[in-house]
Amino acid sequence: MFLAQFMGDEAPFNTLPNITKYMKDLGYLGVQIPCWDARLMNLKQAAESKTYCDDLKGLTNGLAITELASHLLGQLVAVHPAYDDLFDSFAAPEVRGNPQARTEWAVQQMKYAIQATANLGLTVTPSFSGALLWPFMYPWPQRPAGLVEEGFKELAARWKPILDFADQHGVDIAYELHPGEDLHDGASFEMMLAAADNHPRLAINYDPSHFVLQGMDYIGFIDHYGSRIKAFHVKDAEFRPDARAGVYGGYQGWTSRPGRFRSLGDGEVDFGQVFTRMTAIGYKGWAVLEWECCFKDSVQGAAEGAPFIVSHLIDVPTRSFDDFAGAASDTARNRKILGIS
Amino acid sequence: MFLAQFMGDEAPFNTLPNITKYMKDLGYLGVQIPCWDARLMNLKQAAESKTYCDDLKGLTNGLAITELASHLLGQLVAVHPAYDDLFDSFAAPEVRGNPQARTEWAVQQMKYAIQATANLGLTVTPSFSGALLWPFMYPWPQRPAGLVEEGFKELAARWKPILDFADQHGVDIAYELHPGEDLHDGASFEMMLAAADNHPRLAINYDPSHFVLQGMDYIGFIDHYGSRIKAFHVKDAEFRPDARAGVYGGYQGWTSRPGRFRSLGDGEVDFGQVFTRMTAIGYKGWAVLEWECCFKDSVQGAAEGAPFIVSHLIDVPTRSFDDFAGAASDTARNRKILGIS
Amino acid sequence: MFLAQFMGDEAPFNTLPNITKYMKDLGYLGVQIPCWDARLMNLKQAAESKTYCDDLKGLTNGLAITELASHLLGQLVAVHPAYDDLFDSFAAPEVRGNPQARTEWAVQQMKYAIQATANLGLTVTPSFSGALLWPFMYPWPQRPAGLVEEGFKELAARWKPILDFADQHGVDIAYELHPGEDLHDGASFEMMLAAADNHPRLAINYDPSHFVLQGMDYIGFIDHYGSRIKAFHVKDAEFRPDARAGVYGGYQGWTSRPGRFRSLGDGEVDFGQVFTRMTAIGYKGWAVLEWECCFKDSVQGAAEGAPFIVSHLIDVPTRSFDDFAGAASDTARNRKILGIS
Amino acid sequence: MFLAQFMGDEAPFNTLPNITKYMKDLGYLGVQIPCWDARLMNLKQAAESKTYCDDLKGLTNGLAITELASHLLGQLVAVHPAYDDLFDSFAAPEVRGNPQARTEWAVQQMKYAIQATANLGLTVTPSFSGALLWPFMYPWPQRPAGLVEEGFKELAARWKPILDFADQHGVDIAYELHPGEDLHDGASFEMMLAAADNHPRLAINYDPSHFVLQGMDYIGFIDHYGSRIKAFHVKDAEFRPDARAGVYGGYQGWTSRPGRFRSLGDGEVDFGQVFTRMTAIGYKGWAVLEWECCFKDSVQGAAEGAPFIVSHLIDVPTRSFDDFAGAASDTARNRKILGIS
Amino acid sequence: MFLAQFMGDEAPFNTLPNITKYMKDLGYLGVQIPCWDARLMNLKQAAESKTYCDDLKGLTNGLAITELASHLLGQLVAVHPAYDDLFDSFAAPEVRGNPQARTEWAVQQMKYAIQATANLGLTVTPSFSGALLWPFMYPWPQRPAGLVEEGFKELAARWKPILDFADQHGVDIAYELHPGEDLHDGASFEMMLAAADNHPRLAINYDPSHFVLQGMDYIGFIDHYGSRIKAFHVKDAEFRPDARAGVYGGYQGWTSRPGRFRSLGDGEVDFGQVFTRMTAIGYKGWAVLEWECCFKDSVQGAAEGAPFIVSHLIDVPTRSFDDFAGAASDTARNRKILGIS
Amino acid sequence: MFLAQFMGDEAPFNTLPNITKYMKDLGYLGVQIPCWDARLMNLKQAAESKTYCDDLKGLTNGLAITELASHLLGQLVAVHPAYDDLFDSFAAPEVRGNPQARTEWAVQQMKYAIQATANLGLTVTPSFSGALLWPFMYPWPQRPAGLVEEGFKELAARWKPILDFADQHGVDIAYELHPGEDLHDGASFEMMLAAADNHPRLAINYDPSHFVLQGMDYIGFIDHYGSRIKAFHVKDAEFRPDARAGVYGGYQGWTSRPGRFRSLGDGEVDFGQVFTRMTAIGYKGWAVLEWECCFKDSVQGAAEGAPFIVSHLIDVPTRSFDDFAGAASDTARNRKILGIS
Repeated sequence: MFLAQFMGDEAPFNTLPNITKYMKDLGYLGVQIPCWDARLMNLKQAAESKTYCDDLKGLTNGLAITELASHLLGQLVAVHPAYDDLFDSFAAPEVRGNPQARTEWAVQQMKYAIQATANLGLTVTPSFSGALLWPFMYPWPQRPAGLVEEGFKELAARWKPILDFADQHGVDIAYELHPGEDLHDGASFEMMLAAADNHPRLAINYDPSHFVLQGMDYIGFIDHYGSRIKAFHVKDAEFRPDARAGVYGGYQGWTSRPGRFRSLGDGEVDFGQVFTRMTAIGYKGWAVLEWECCFKDSVQGAAEGAPFIVSHLIDVPTRSFDDFAGAASDTARNRKILGIS
Repeated sequence: MFLAQFMGDEAPFNTLPNITKYMKDLGYLGVQIPCWDARLMNLKQAAESKTYCDDLKGLTNGLAITELASHLLGQLVAVHPAYDDLFDSFAAPEVRGNPQARTEWAVQQMKYAIQATANLGLTVTPSFSGALLWPFMYPWPQRPAGLVEEGFKELAARWKPILDFADQHGVDIAYELHPGEDLHDGASFEMMLAAADNHPRLAINYDPSHFVLQGMDYIGFIDHYGSRIKAFHVKDAEFRPDARAGVYGGYQGWTSRPGRFRSLGDGEVDFGQVFTRMTAIGYKGWAVLEWECCFKDSVQGAAEGAPFIVSHLIDVPTRSFDDFAGAASDTARNRKILGIS
Repeated sequence: MFLAQFMGDEAPFNTLPNITKYMKDLGYLGVQIPCWDARLMNLKQAAESKTYCDDLKGLTNGLAITELASHLLGQLVAVHPAYDDLFDSFAAPEVRGNPQARTEWAVQQMKYAIQATANLGLTVTPSFSGALLWPFMYPWPQRPAGLVEEGFKELAARWKPILDFADQHGVDIAYELHPGEDLHDGASFEMMLAAADNHPRLAINYDPSHFVLQGMDYIGFIDHYGSRIKAFHVKDAEFRPDARAGVYGGYQGWTSRPGRFRSLGDGEVDFGQVFTRMTAIGYKGWAVLEWECCFKDSVQGAAEGAPFIVSHLIDVPTRSFDDFAGAASDTARNRKILGIS
Repeated sequence: MFLAQFMGDEAPFNTLPNITKYMKDLGYLGVQIPCWDARLMNLKQAAESKTYCDDLKGLTNGLAITELASHLLGQLVAVHPAYDDLFDSFAAPEVRGNPQARTEWAVQQMKYAIQATANLGLTVTPSFSGALLWPFMYPWPQRPAGLVEEGFKELAARWKPILDFADQHGVDIAYELHPGEDLHDGASFEMMLAAADNHPRLAINYDPSHFVLQGMDYIGFIDHYGSRIKAFHVKDAEFRPDARAGVYGGYQGWTSRPGRFRSLGDGEVDFGQVFTRMTAIGYKGWAVLEWECCFKDSVQGAAEGAPFIVSHLIDVPTRSFDDFAGAASDTARNRKILGIS
Repeated sequence: MFLAQFMGDEAPFNTLPNITKYMKDLGYLGVQIPCWDARLMNLKQAAESKTYCDDLKGLTNGLAITELASHLLGQLVAVHPAYDDLFDSFAAPEVRGNPQARTEWAVQQMKYAIQATANLGLTVTPSFSGALLWPFMYPWPQRPAGLVEEGFKELAARWKPILDFADQHGVDIAYELHPGEDLHDGASFEMMLAAADNHPRLAINYDPSHFVLQGMDYIGFIDHYGSRIKAFHVKDAEFRPDARAGVYGGYQGWTSRPGRFRSLGDGEVDFGQVFTRMTAIGYKGWAVLEWECCFKDSVQGAAEGAPFIVSHLIDVPTRSFDDFAGAASDTARNRKILGIS
Repeated sequence: MFLAQFMGDEAPFNTLPNITKYMKDLGYLGVQIPCWDARLMNLKQAAESKTYCDDLKGLTNGLAITELASHLLGQLVAVHPAYDDLFDSFAAPEVRGNPQARTEWAVQQMKYAIQATANLGLTVTPSFSGALLWPFMYPWPQRPAGLVEEGFKELAARWKPILDFADQHGVDIAYELHPGEDLHDGASFEMMLAAADNHPRLAINYDPSHFVLQGMDYIGFIDHYGSRIKAFHVKDAEFRPDARAGVYGGYQGWTSRPGRFRSLGDGEVDFGQVFTRMTAIGYKGWAVLEWECCFKDSVQGAAEGAPFIVSHLIDVPTRSFDDFAGAASDTARNRKILGIS
């Protein structure tokens, strides 16, 4: 369970011990902690002290800490000026209104998140890439020559040192491909890969809900990009366009726009196939519920989520399905069967 | 035929007489003139002189002038700063780099377009609404309270005087609902209608291609918004998402992004139904080919377009299909048939 | 649970105390009572005595009485002579064979149902409209001019006094839109609305099964007619046409005709979306299981129904999903974000 | 071309020579004549005089007479009283208002149609079955035991003498399966077959448009009932249900009801497959255009029809596709290939 | 539960008492025994001794023996030489390498299986047909004239004595229609029926998974061939072709080929409809889980299987759904309703 | 036009001059010659004499020779013994009955085909791979370990010398991926690529009809394998499975099996997309009609084919669609637009 959308100011949603007690009772086995949320942890301390991290693990009522999420920190690594005002609230007060200082602060925070991840014995942090090009997503007005290339060059230049730092700590940065971020689909991820020289720590946090809202083949995505998938958000969504609005949504709110997140099982994601393909590519990480739904209360959503995920897990066979697969090959017999003289 | 995408510096694409000769030979009956293109006409003169307009009509080799298109002028009525640099090239040199002066210039140009339309004896100009809110189309970052309402309030404030001016000249402004514009679907059009007090000249230039690229029900759109449709672009498109990219397109160019315009008949638009529903709502205007295709040469596209449209036109029945529809009603007989004692 | 299809002559299906005990054990929270069934209640007494109604409520083993259903009474308000013989058995013996007396009797019974509904503290009765025009549903033979208008004029004339009476008692009449009734879809409901001057008590009992059997968009129906939906039958159906028969069914019985009612979850209704859209329009009434299935035993159907419905209920969020939605709007900041100078 | 929907009081639609001239110019090769239309022919004379028939053939400008259609005559063989008033206008004035006399008159007319068909050297007449059961098509109210069986028993009793008479003249009666008729799909046709002891002259006039309007598998129908298909109406239709109405149409007119006939190529019928399957079953009769469309003028429809049909015709191969199909079988070799010792 | 895929050399999968204990704990009611597996039973003894069979029934922990499966025995009745080497391992050591002896051995084993079935009080054995023609499934190279006919003639000649023997013992042979066998779909089953003179014991073991892998309409199959279905394997599958491979699979293993068996509920089979149609045709036999899945462990698959099947079972109604169905028919009333004078 | 299916013993189908005259009159621009057909050419002479080839070009009435097809020769390079008898007729009489000699003969013939191709100034020959593994396509019986690997090892060993020879002559061997051949889809082509060390002359003859019959994504195939596509057969097909048969076809003939080739435009291939994707990947070769249809006469098929192909050809744009694409990039401006300080 990803805790970001559940934190609040009242018990049981206000502290790590309280909320993990609550989630444990619902049947969850672990929690993904938004590392920027001071109600849950102190990121700088976690980065600097393994003891602090060990203590943190003692506050979770026995639930595993699956990952430290660093989305809002990664977001601030790259912000187009059109969004400066809106994203400032995620930054520390002292760097607000100063984009350059804010970027530097964000880079530092990402490094803390990497260190803290390592201190917790974990190997991946899900994050956001931030965006320089998003206002130019639709090709109207026409993009000038080189604009896209310049954007990815700068984005890679900002992230490369962070990725290298991650590599030194044995941590993957798993970008959640998400509208509003420069890395929002396979094509943009490939451009980043190229710009970052196929950095080995450049990874993907797979979340099918964002692909449903883009109309993408989220099943084929797993087969195509499987080797880079290092984290997994189990989140549902539906896209129900009509004569009134489509993918851009006409500036409507969540209940009225055709693309909406939904509670698990209420949306359009075929989780049977998602878990099948994740099994097929050999994914070994956690399946972390992320929950947002404009129609259903979060308490109901959390309660339904754990059994939903359990019902989709697949135990890998203990012996090979192809009985002969491991057997020794008998060349002479095979040639005879094939009629090769 | 909408001439904007065909104009060039070489014959026959360089002057109105040349290009209308060319289009007439292909079988077209009329042309829609982009009124900002000095190769085709002088907008200020057309606005001020009916004689100039009469002369203009004499230069078209007998083709009708279906409408004056004012897209690029309307575009400049409202521009978010993120696009200032990119849209400046559409403005007169003297107002570039000065957004406020550019806006005023655009308002004046729109008024010229309205006057010229009237001088040509026409009653509608297709246009663009411009955009203030487009960078905030996707709800990440979350939009602050009142942002959308403020945007439409300003947009309506800018357009209301132009719409009133159009009303005085008996002209409808038919906004092409188009990604990148604040008016891009039915929902955003309804918000504008509300903000502009249902202005009677606030109309729609129906173009199914933009709805295909949004995943919308472009057939149902005609039934739903038919009374406001005053112009019609016959343009084809295809949306073929895959595991690599979806509607946002990953910053790819036209040949690589899943949403693409196509030559008529090569895309996914069901023009049989489009023309049927346009007939059903009683649309009386022109069907104007707009052509863009990244795979096919424009010469081939233009040649195939005229016969394609002709094959889809529907002659309205000269007598009612329901034979009894106009007949007098015989109440007594009807009550007997219904068994009403 | 709607009791009509479950009543029989043997325990536990023979009395209100018995059957409510049975339904309570299965997990149901309430019952909808067919008010014409003397095994369950005496309608005239209930209309005339609040005490009788209070007593009635004491016989249900603690289950709520969700509504009094008045389908067979409403049916007899309007009957085309072709069906006189077949519907006579639903009327009191003394008015059988006398259509005019039967109509008057039905009107009186409907008034009793309204009074009884009010006496039980309820505000809606689901019903049928009856039919004068049904034999002329398919336009062969061609309908004479004015026939349909005449039919709705008469239908409205018969129902208007009943609707007024209902209004005086604070009760909505929720017509179940159903093949065989003049009100069987949205278009016919709209004609009735027009003929009855948009009577405020003219409402809809939403039942998706009948729309499946007509091939209608039963999801879009909720959005389109939501403000008039006052009751809700949770009933499933499937339509599986083939080379042998289609919607008209070739006079086959229920097991052989392509359109069939089914036990909940065995048919084609997407109840996930049905409950979502009912939530979206703010429906506050009961979700009442109506059960008919030609393949499955009713005992099994009843047992599976309650958990099926529970699994589809949606708790409405206690706080708004859009965090900023209730916040105060900061105009100056918004204008700055939009680049409005 | 089936002439019924084209006849009028003004040239060229008013006489056989005029209309056949018109149709010939459009490219048609034959006409199907509605034998009840006195503007085209005198049925009684045609029945009694081969010379008259030979003369008739001389009036068609060289077009073939493909069949004599007898739909309205067959219709009157069986009429439920609910439709007495509406169908009376198709009968001779002297039998109107007298159902029994009208039935006898219709039987006699059908016999004339059979004789005239034979006199013209033809072997099939397309027709309607009439209906006794149609008001009871939907199983509400519930049908009493034996009602359907009784209906078909009577229908067969009326048609058997006509079918026998047809047999004596070497003529098939090809019922157009059509809503409003008792024979409206495969299931009802099978019931008639059973009631009429599989009469060899009981045949089908295949018309896919009526199956589209029922949601049936009109392609599979050809494979299933191919041996009884003796005539073929090439007619298009579309069924476009929505949230407002479905198959029963809410008593709307043709332009507003979801099920509509359309001009050829404008509807949903997959004529490529229709002609393929008709070829596959070895159908040798005519493909006769029947035209009705509420959106398109009949003149346009007629002009587009002939080339549409021509483009779908399939020349049967002159040599077998399976080269070895006609070859002698070599048993010894075959057994060797199969490894049979 | 079909035991074949679960047998192994370690407890609890190694003996009949052990595995039935295991299956009973999972909720299964019976087991289908692969009669060729010596770990479970001695076929010859079972054929010759009713006492042995009674004892066998005592070893199942109270589970029913649903059927004796004889697939591998039937397989060896007909083997094309291309597969001689591969199938030899299923035969007794003494007949390996000697196709003719192997065939005779297989015929004898099938007879044992029939006798054992009867001794157990059962009436059907599921089996395979074997194949002579399978290498010639695709018509390249072109098949010589008579090849297919010769193949079925031989196949029928081999099976007829076995079918006659089965008839004498009151046992049906239910061929599992399966790729690789000559009887693999409806068309090939019909050819065998014709070649075997519609032998009354020639039956089908319905297994929808094999039809999914052929792209067949596995629901329509039940309606079409229902009278011959005597056994039923509940097995799931998915067919997910892509740009890389399709139905033939490119010689890939199970995890990589597009057609794959899956654990119940993880595949594409619509078991709701399968159980509905099986109910509709009156199937009375067992629903036997057969399990193969290349992604999921068999222990998990077995545990999920029993509740999955239970959730799909349909209790047949105890009283008729058509209330009037059993009632006496009132001819005079019916004729009056139909308006027959 | 591929001539193989049109050759016959009677004019105009009996000689190269006759048939090219015939095809030219139908509008074809070139012919693909089956190089094994002595009625059209002498392969050995063509291989050895450029003069002969020049003469050959003079016999085509001005039509281009698009390619020499070598399918039947490639087929004989690898034959599993199950098909020895059936394929022998394609070989020279002297090597029939002697598989090893036949293989050597086929290798030599392939070399002739390569030399002749080069002598004609062409760069590709479409062919077949032959098959050793085809009888083991379906994984029943289970394939022994190493069987598939052994098969491809041998296949590559036989083809490598031919591919090297082709390389020396500047010729690609474009294997038509076809059921019955070891190379029948993308997966098997990839295995061959691996076995043949990615030989640069190992290419594909793209023919969508064979992919339709396998249920493959034939559009995605072009994007996936485009760089290896060197030849293109324009051939249509349909796959219409039902309850009776599916992809394996139940040993039915062409008219009865669900998978069938069809005349262009009569099948299911979306040629609009096929030509679009072929344009998108930059395919420069010929589009060669291959015709087989069991329902339509070949004369009609040939006549319809040329205009069908012409209507699908796409002229590549002469200027770039992205106006700015070739323009110089202005880095400073781009960085300003992106807000990079």
